[in-house]
Amino acid sequence: MESPKKFRIALDAMGGDYAPQREVAGALDALRTFGSTVDIVLVGDENILRNELQKQGGDHFNVEVVHAPEVITMNDSPTAALKQKKNSSLAVGMRLHREGNVDAFVSAGNTGAVLSAATLILGRIKGVSRPTIGTFIPAQNGVCLLLDAGANVDCRAQHLYEFAVMGSIYVQHLYYKKNPTVGLLNVGEEKTKGTQEVLKAYEMLSESSLNFVGNIEGRDIFTVKADVVVCDGFVGNALLKFGESFPSFLKYRLREYASRGLLNKLLVGLALIPLKRSLNDLDPNEHGGVPVLGVNGVVVVGHGSTSPKGFKNMILRASEVVRNNVNHHIEKALHSALFTAERRKD
Amino acid sequence: MESPKKFRIALDAMGGDYAPQREVAGALDALRTFGSTVDIVLVGDENILRNELQKQGGDHFNVEVVHAPEVITMNDSPTAALKQKKNSSLAVGMRLHREGNVDAFVSAGNTGAVLSAATLILGRIKGVSRPTIGTFIPAQNGVCLLLDAGANVDCRAQHLYEFAVMGSIYVQHLYYKKNPTVGLLNVGEEKTKGTQEVLKAYEMLSESSLNFVGNIEGRDIFTVKADVVVCDGFVGNALLKFGESFPSFLKYRLREYASRGLLNKLLVGLALIPLKRSLNDLDPNEHGGVPVLGVNGVVVVGHGSTSPKGFKNMILRASEVVRNNVNHHIEKALHSALFTAERRKD
Repeated sequence: MESPKKFRIALDAMGGDYAPQREVAGALDALRTFGSTVDIVLVGDENILRNELQKQGGDHFNVEVVHAPEVITMNDSPTAALKQKKNSSLAVGMRLHREGNVDAFVSAGNTGAVLSAATLILGRIKGVSRPTIGTFIPAQNGVCLLLDAGANVDCRAQHLYEFAVMGSIYVQHLYYKKNPTVGLLNVGEEKTKGTQEVLKAYEMLSESSLNFVGNIEGRDIFTVKADVVVCDGFVGNALLKFGESFPSFLKYRLREYASRGLLNKLLVGLALIPLKRSLNDLDPNEHGGVPVLGVNGVVVVGHGSTSPKGFKNMILRASEVVRNNVNHHIEKALHSALFTAERRKD
Repeated sequence: MESPKKFRIALDAMGGDYAPQREVAGALDALRTFGSTVDIVLVGDENILRNELQKQGGDHFNVEVVHAPEVITMNDSPTAALKQKKNSSLAVGMRLHREGNVDAFVSAGNTGAVLSAATLILGRIKGVSRPTIGTFIPAQNGVCLLLDAGANVDCRAQHLYEFAVMGSIYVQHLYYKKNPTVGLLNVGEEKTKGTQEVLKAYEMLSESSLNFVGNIEGRDIFTVKADVVVCDGFVGNALLKFGESFPSFLKYRLREYASRGLLNKLLVGLALIPLKRSLNDLDPNEHGGVPVLGVNGVVVVGHGSTSPKGFKNMILRASEVVRNNVNHHIEKALHSALFTAERRKD
């Protein structure tokens, strides 16, 4: 039996809010768990990273470090930072990937900057107008991939259509779901609803070979009426952040209830057992980040506050995207779709 | 002491999903509770309504019934239905209001049709480009008025600005909150974020006399970073419906957990006590519906599934909007705002 190909994954070790501690911990954990299938390249200040590796007992792992003295912060403007900080861990890591030194790049840095760097340095897949970043929303029974999650505001119908193609392929190849259902987020189920661009997108999706199930509403996300839901990044971002705040809202209300007496406190203490178990997948660290879809390369982004476990999952996720050749499938799908569209015009 | 003025409120008794049972029950409950301050006019099929009144023991109340033989359903297209069903409970009730026979009109019917009827039959307040419907989102400590909630998609900056003015006045006069804070829903806190129209709205709101606190994100809604949050109806509708599905999501997950053993079942049973108490205001029936803002009249709309208690609260809410002269304040505010805007142009 042939041993599986080993992938080289570069990790932006200075991107997250707790860098480089969590990045290094996640990388070491990944090597311990699936070190036979991945090599990890840490990108960042070499001195700092060597020290952190030593501190965390990672000396005996064969971790490569590529020096990058600068850091793009969460407060930097994405495009300005990329111009000014050419030696940032983000830019250096992305160039490593472009030059073929690594198979994928993983970062918990400034999402806007990661998207810009990926688009500028790696370029777009043929047929893609706008690369996108989606997000997984845990649902009643599975997950729903919502895209765009904020990378692109003011989307046109063509963009929404491309998001649907890319999301569909991603879910198909990473979640092994044949012919995933695709929904268009709208203000009602009827096909006459929505803005001009959404109406046009409805038509394009209806005529495509995607498994389009029509308009879906905000209330249909948790019930997974569609595996892939497409929307403008403005809406996606608002939804995503609103949903993420639900657990804190719940905690706030329960704390308030608990403060009103001993019996209340006891009941809340007991309630937390089923609640934590039932809602554990609301923790974004479980999902291993989300890919930048539509660029010529494999880039996975995570929250600034990604935990070590989250980094480990992101590294795993990146290697799966490489193994499943997602970009090749996207290019093929958009190519055949373009062909269909052109033919229809005749 | 002068006795308070008695208001006449018309109720669309055929609008809701459980009409006329819940409408009549709510009306009778309202008369029992605050019958000294309101008179109620039921609008709908007279025979059906008289029977229902008798069935529910409401004969001894002096309830006026205005006959309207037709019904606009949830599946009707708003504008077409208004043209075709001139004798629907919605159209008849709205005309009663326009002619000054009642002080307000309350309906749990097709929201789009209620908005269209209000705009067409009552007309807009001077200075209002687009009437709007908001929604109250229960938050950690109070409520947040989000508007537009789906009535207007593709909003321009001027519309968002007007929503802010109307929402601010509504919260000020109905929730007795002085100088309520106003936020602009956006994909980030920075003032450089968002679509062209949102950027322009940011500028208009900054220069206005409103208590504008800047951009707020999806995660800031539950924490009431602003009392009034303005956004395009497409976004508002998606957020609102997504938020309304949280409780069912939670229930689904807890039920799943409970099904895995007796101890689990017991824990979930206990957990429901603090959960129900802590989240009871997520029930839209508690809020008494939402007003159509910007029309020349007082119209309050509710969910199709409004409960009798919900109808009672809507009737109460409508009478408060009349008493507080909200429309007069809106007209004044927009007039002075227009004056400021015009002066600035010179």
